[in-house]
Amino acid sequence: MEKSESTKIEIAETSKERKGKAPLLGAVPPVAAEHVRGRYKRGISIFDLILRISAMSLALAATVIMGTAEQTLPFFTQFFQFQASYDDLPTFAFFVVAMAIVSGYLVLSIPFSIVCIARPLAVGPRLLLIILDTMIVTLTTAAAGSSAAIVYLAHNGNSDANWLAICQQFTDFCQTTSEAVVAAFIAVALLVFMIVLSAFALRKH
Amino acid sequence: MEKSESTKIEIAETSKERKGKAPLLGAVPPVAAEHVRGRYKRGISIFDLILRISAMSLALAATVIMGTAEQTLPFFTQFFQFQASYDDLPTFAFFVVAMAIVSGYLVLSIPFSIVCIARPLAVGPRLLLIILDTMIVTLTTAAAGSSAAIVYLAHNGNSDANWLAICQQFTDFCQTTSEAVVAAFIAVALLVFMIVLSAFALRKH
Repeated sequence: MEKSESTKIEIAETSKERKGKAPLLGAVPPVAAEHVRGRYKRGISIFDLILRISAMSLALAATVIMGTAEQTLPFFTQFFQFQASYDDLPTFAFFVVAMAIVSGYLVLSIPFSIVCIARPLAVGPRLLLIILDTMIVTLTTAAAGSSAAIVYLAHNGNSDANWLAICQQFTDFCQTTSEAVVAAFIAVALLVFMIVLSAFALRKH
Repeated sequence: MEKSESTKIEIAETSKERKGKAPLLGAVPPVAAEHVRGRYKRGISIFDLILRISAMSLALAATVIMGTAEQTLPFFTQFFQFQASYDDLPTFAFFVVAMAIVSGYLVLSIPFSIVCIARPLAVGPRLLLIILDTMIVTLTTAAAGSSAAIVYLAHNGNSDANWLAICQQFTDFCQTTSEAVVAAFIAVALLVFMIVLSAFALRKH
C-alpha cells in the first residue's frame, strides 16, 4: 500500500514537473528561436557571399572585356587608319572606370559578408552592406544602361540624327562591347538579389 | 524519510517555477522600448512618404518633359522638314516608357507608405517597399543613364564614330531633354535615400 502510494506520488510529481516545465519550454524558445534565426540568417549570408563573388567576377570580366576591346580594320588610307577602341567613346570609358570601381567595392565587401556569416545576428555589417550595395547598384546600372544605349546606336544607327551604324565595319569591336554590357547587366541583377536578401536578413523575426 | 523527500522535491519545483517566470518579467520592459522604437520608425515612415511624393513628382515631370520634347526648325527644304521629337531616338522612347512605369509605381506605393506610418512596427509592407524600390531604382537609373549617354552624344558628337552633334541645330530640344534627364537622376538619388531609410527602419536594434 505504502509502496503503491509512493509510486502514485512520484507520478503526480512528474506530472507537476512537466507542468512546471511547460512555461519554461514556452520561455526557452527565444533561445531556440534565436538559434533557428541564426541558422536562417547564416544561410542567407552564405548565399550572399556566393552571389557577391559571382557579381565581382562578372564586374571584373566586364571591365577587362571593355577595357581591352579594340579593333583595327585591315584597310587604311594614306593619312588615316581605321581603328576603334573603348576610349574613342566617352561612354565606354565611363563604363570601364565605373565597373572597375564596382569590382573594387565588391572585393572589399567580401570580408564584411564573411563577418555576417560568422556573426549572423549582427546588424551593423549587414546594414553597411545594404547601404553601400544600393549605391553601387545605381553606379553599375548607370554604366550598363549608358553603354547599352551607345551599343544599340552603334548596331542600328539613327537615320533621324544622321548617325550611321559603325558595327557594319567594326563587327568584332561591337561584339566585344556587347558582351561587356551583358555581363554588367547580369551583375546588376545579382546585386539587386543581394539587396533583397539583405533586407530579408535585416527584418526582425 | 519519504516525507522529507517529497518536500525537497516541492522546493525544487517552486524554484524551478520562479526561474520559469524570471524571463517573463524581463520581457515586460520592452513595451516601453517598443513605444520608443515605434515613434522612431514612424518618423522614418513620414520622411519616406515625403521623399516618395517628391520622387513621384520628379518622375512624372521627367516623363512629361521628355514626352513633349519636340522642335521643328524654322527652315526646310522642298522634300524635308527638320524636326526632332523624343520618338526619333529609341533611347528617349525607352526613357518615357520607363519613367511612366516609375511614376505609376510610386503613385501605387504611397498607400503602403501610409500603412507604414499607421503601423510603424509592421514588417510586411516595409519589406515589400524595399524590394520593389530596389527594382524600380534600377529601372530609373537605366533610363536616366542611357538617356544621359545620348544627350551627351547629341551635345558633343563623336568624331571617331563620325556622329555629329545635333544640338547645334536643335538647341531647344537638347535643352528640354537634358532637363528631363536631370530630373530622373534626382529621382534616383531620392529612391536610393528611401531604400537606405527603409533598411534603417527594418533593422532590429
